[in-house]
Order: sequence, then structure tokens, then C-alpha cells
Amino acid sequence: MLEDKNQHKTNIESLGEFGLIDYLTKNIEISQESTLKGIGDDAAVLDFKDKKAVISTDLLVEGVHFDLAYMPLKHLGYKAVAANVSDICAMNATPTQITVSLALSNRFPLEAVEELYEGIKLAAKIYNVDIIGGDTTSSQKGLIISITAIGEANLNDIVYRSGAQPNDLLVVTGDIGAAYMGLQVLEREKQVFLVNPNNQPDLEAYTYLIERQLKPEARKDIKEILEKLEIKPTAMIDISDGLSSEILHLCKQSGVGCNLYEDKIPGDPQLINVCEEFNLDITTIALNGGEDYELLFTISTEDYDKIKGNPNFTVIGHMTEEKEGTHLITRANTKIALKARGWNAIKEE
Amino acid sequence: MLEDKNQHKTNIESLGEFGLIDYLTKNIEISQESTLKGIGDDAAVLDFKDKKAVISTDLLVEGVHFDLAYMPLKHLGYKAVAANVSDICAMNATPTQITVSLALSNRFPLEAVEELYEGIKLAAKIYNVDIIGGDTTSSQKGLIISITAIGEANLNDIVYRSGAQPNDLLVVTGDIGAAYMGLQVLEREKQVFLVNPNNQPDLEAYTYLIERQLKPEARKDIKEILEKLEIKPTAMIDISDGLSSEILHLCKQSGVGCNLYEDKIPGDPQLINVCEEFNLDITTIALNGGEDYELLFTISTEDYDKIKGNPNFTVIGHMTEEKEGTHLITRANTKIALKARGWNAIKEE
Repeated sequence: MLEDKNQHKTNIESLGEFGLIDYLTKNIEISQESTLKGIGDDAAVLDFKDKKAVISTDLLVEGVHFDLAYMPLKHLGYKAVAANVSDICAMNATPTQITVSLALSNRFPLEAVEELYEGIKLAAKIYNVDIIGGDTTSSQKGLIISITAIGEANLNDIVYRSGAQPNDLLVVTGDIGAAYMGLQVLEREKQVFLVNPNNQPDLEAYTYLIERQLKPEARKDIKEILEKLEIKPTAMIDISDGLSSEILHLCKQSGVGCNLYEDKIPGDPQLINVCEEFNLDITTIALNGGEDYELLFTISTEDYDKIKGNPNFTVIGHMTEEKEGTHLITRANTKIALKARGWNAIKEE
Repeated sequence: MLEDKNQHKTNIESLGEFGLIDYLTKNIEISQESTLKGIGDDAAVLDFKDKKAVISTDLLVEGVHFDLAYMPLKHLGYKAVAANVSDICAMNATPTQITVSLALSNRFPLEAVEELYEGIKLAAKIYNVDIIGGDTTSSQKGLIISITAIGEANLNDIVYRSGAQPNDLLVVTGDIGAAYMGLQVLEREKQVFLVNPNNQPDLEAYTYLIERQLKPEARKDIKEILEKLEIKPTAMIDISDGLSSEILHLCKQSGVGCNLYEDKIPGDPQLINVCEEFNLDITTIALNGGEDYELLFTISTEDYDKIKGNPNFTVIGHMTEEKEGTHLITRANTKIALKARGWNAIKEE
């Protein structure tokens, strides 16, 4: 419904593999000092000097991770990069490079690949990462995007998932749940569109939610903010699969339990309104939604005063001894077990 | 035809995404000093100290890059790693780590994924690279494998595609064309099998060719051999898409021309016999076949005495001034233009 059906279409087969790669990468510039050699050889060459290299990879499959019916290709490219950069930020590292591999079925004309690549290049510019390599090939069905993100950090700055201690405070950046609710809005509009293609959707009331779904941002800013506050988190993860799933990862890998307070989970006012409209429970959405790309971390209680009142952060709970288990303390002050029901690329149902 | 149809099948959906990743990666060990943190966090952490990091990525799609009718999954896993490691070797670097992402349609039971992973793990062991991350997800159709290989090298050791000079000798490791011919044999047997599934193929005469196709090896040994000979190539590339295509890459990026001598191109005796059987021209196969994963490099004429008579190397031509063009000198001593007709994941036809 967001696609322009009248665009000019060039068959990518007319360019061939090397032609397509040349075409897509011709204007790519290198800005990171650590990139000695980017695209154009058997491999890229990077120099991290005294810093450590941090590396993460994601595979995104059409029909599993995204639906092009409401995800414009440019946004998809941007989001794919942001999601990978987010993993680097979750190590308290600075993203520096990405590689981008694409597999495309023959239904994609060159103009579609260009649009996708525009989003990728825009995100690379915004996050200041060099595109240093990749692969472009055919697929039997749909679009597949594989991105590897690379970053750098001083060894002492790196934060793992495993360092949380009992009594540490559990902190989240930004607000949670909006991206998933944006997806629900878009899914509903898709159904309306399928029934009546001439219907013009009025999405005014949903702009924030839709933006969170279609153009999420990695929290590259958090590393610097924490540095200025002189805080090093004890453990950190990014929220890609839902708050509950990520909290359980931190607990499992740190060997701790936790109490999460329902009334502390930050939700945007628009999310609150739209949850009412959809008759959905906001806590369920926040816990299980995913794709927020906010950071979830733990800090020592001694650091509490440094973040108190800071609009970037919300304390949503605290860690406990492992034997105490992982719990959600509800608004009614009942204690229920925290379960991971977050998004799963290989469904358990 | 190489698949055991009676194997026990476990649905991967019963494990879920994290369960599958845990299951596949539970026995993975780290052996590289540069791997500070492998699988299990938002990103892996690597320390290359004074060395440079080298990084390359490939995306392999079922039905485009491989056919499971004759490619056993274990071999496929092995080959996917070897092909990526080969890119690191082509930089004259030492492979150290890989990430492995898989997308699988629901026709793959857990046992199939395990078999694929066994091949991946075996190759990781043989090439001494740590598996440090990846992603596992569903696909709408078929199997997709995305591997990123990482290596390390001293800055002075790294060899690019762009350093060849006029008069440099063009050298190839091993023999060329067998992998492609192995594919032709397997394609023929597949057709026979489709007509008569009870036919037991006699592949005795094709063992080397089939092994080159199903279990190619990256030339990780060459770096050390060259070091002992005190040779640093002026330019290097690996042969994945066919000899002619790779020579043209070297010429283009080095700004030189070349003369390639048909009678010098090394072919295995089995390849010669089978080319006769199939009524195919061996030079065409060598030039355009691909998937040999041998290394192609240039050296200064001063180094010629060091490799003369060395069974690992064959001098197949020499570089010229760019304006002289790129040529094949045939056995009949005629000079014809060298053209890239190698394998292309996005067909130009």
C-alpha cells in the first residue's frame, strides 16, 4: 500500500552479479580510521589498534522478519542496519563497519534494490559505519538480508550480559512496546487495504508507533551518556525480542534472579491510548513485543544517584539472588513468574 | 540420492530459536587466542593486538549455489566454510573466526541441521577457526547459509588484488577445472537417478573430480609455503568464479594486461580423461568453471627461481602493460582476447 506501482523497472539480470555490486557500491565512502580497505578485494582490512573488535550478525528473511506490504524497502534497509548496530551498542562498543549481503528473487527490479540500498546507506551515514563488503545473489523466493556489524571498544569499556549482581538496579532506555504496537496498526491497515484498496488510511493517531516499527533507531548515544555520568553498566543487552526475554537472558547469564515492577515499565502516551483502542494489555505488549532496540542494563545501587531523574533512563526493577527466581511485581502488588514469550524466528507453537 | 530417507526426524520448531542455537552450539570450543568472547552475548569480542583484521562474507542460497539432490548436507557445511576461509587466504592472512547464519524452511528436520552443522564444525576444526556467532531462523523456501570469515595478518603481509606490475609472473596453486567437471558428473548422475532411482552409479573414474566439487579445500597452507620461500606475491585472489574472471579482476584492479598460456594451465589427469568422455574442451572448463578455491597470484620475475619446479605452483602467464590488453595464447600460438564467462549468481543470459 505504500509502494508506487508505476515506477520504472530495470531487470537486475541485465547488470549481472559484478555489475550490480559495482552499481550499488560505487558511491560508498570510507570514513572510519579503522577501515584500511573496504569493498573491492577478497576481504576488507581493518585496524583496531589498541581496541578490541566486536562483531555481530543477523539474517532477515522476507515473510519471517518483514512484510513488504507495509514495510517500504528504504525503511527496511535502514532498520536492518539499525538492528545490527544495536547489538554493537549493547556491548557498550562503538559501531564502525558493516557488511551487507542480499539475495533477491527476480521479482525485484533494480529500482527496488536501489531503494533498499538507499536505506542501508542512510543508516550507515547516520550511525557513521563504513560499508566494507558483502555479497549479492539471486534467491528462489523473496528477499534475504544478511548484515554483519563490527565495532570497537576499549577492553575495560565492554559490557557483557553476564556481569549483573544481586541488588543491581535494572534500567531501560527510552520507552518499550511501541514498535510492536506499530506493527499491529500496520497489520490492521493491511487487512483494510485488502478489502478496500481505495481506502486512504488515517494514521495520524499512530505516527509514533509506526515510526518505531518502520524506522527504529539504535541507541548509539547511550555509550557517551553513560561515560559522561561515569557509569559502567554491570551487564547489558539490547531489546530486540521483548523485554521479558531479554531480562531472562541477563538473569541466566549473570546467574541472578530479578524483580521487575509492572508500574515502572515506560510506555509512550500514544501506546497507552492505542492499547485501549485495540483492547490490549500494555504490559503484555511491553514484555513480549520486541523490536524496540532500546538498551536494558544493570548498574550498581551506588550509581543510582547519577541516573535519578535522567529522562533517558528508567529503573524498572532490581536483581536478586538466583534462587529467588525471576518475577514480575504487578500493579496489584502480586508476584508472578516472568516468562519469555517474545518473538521467535522459529516458532514454538 | 545420497540422502538416507529412513532417518529419524525431529521437528526444529519443537526446540524454538534459542533452543536450536543452544543445541547446535553447545560443544563449540574456542581455540584462537584472539577470541576473547565467542557465542552467547550480543556480539563476539576479538583482540588482534598488533595485527590487522581481515573480513569477508558470503551468502549461499539453495537452488542457486547448491543442489541438495547430490550435495550431502555435511559436505555443504564444510564447503561453505572452506569457500569463506579461501577469501581470507587470498589476502595472505590467517583465518581465525567465522560466524554462521542459517535460514531453514520447515522441511528440514533437526537431524538435517545437525548434519549441516557437523560439516561446519569439521571445517572449523580443520582450518582452526572459532565459530563465534551467527543467527538461526526460518526461511520461506529452502536453505540459506550466510558465513562471515575473519582473519588476521601483519600489515606488511597483506596482499591485495591491485599490486601486480607489468612483467610479473602469473602463478596458480594446484590444478584447475576439476570442481566444475565434478559438478557435471553429479548433474549427469542426477538425471540418470531421476529416470531410474534403482541405478547404482559407478563413480570410481570420477572420485577426484567429485571430491573437488563436494569437499574443496581452502589453501591455508600457501601462506606458510610462500613465507618459507621468502616470496610475497604482488597481487592475489582466490579462484571461486573461474580462472578467466579472476585474472581479469587482477588485471583491472592492478591496471595491467596479461598473457595467459593455454598449455600451462594445470589440469588433473582425471579431468583430461573425463573432458574427453564428455566431449568438453578442458581449457574452457578451466577458464570458466569456478569453485576450485585455488589461489592465483603474481610475483616479481626475480622470485621465479624460488618457485621453479615447486609442485605447489604453476606459472601460467605474465602480466603486461595495460594497453596490451588481456589475452590467452593458445596451444596453436594464436592470441585471443580473454573474456570472463565464469559463474555468476545473477545470470546475464
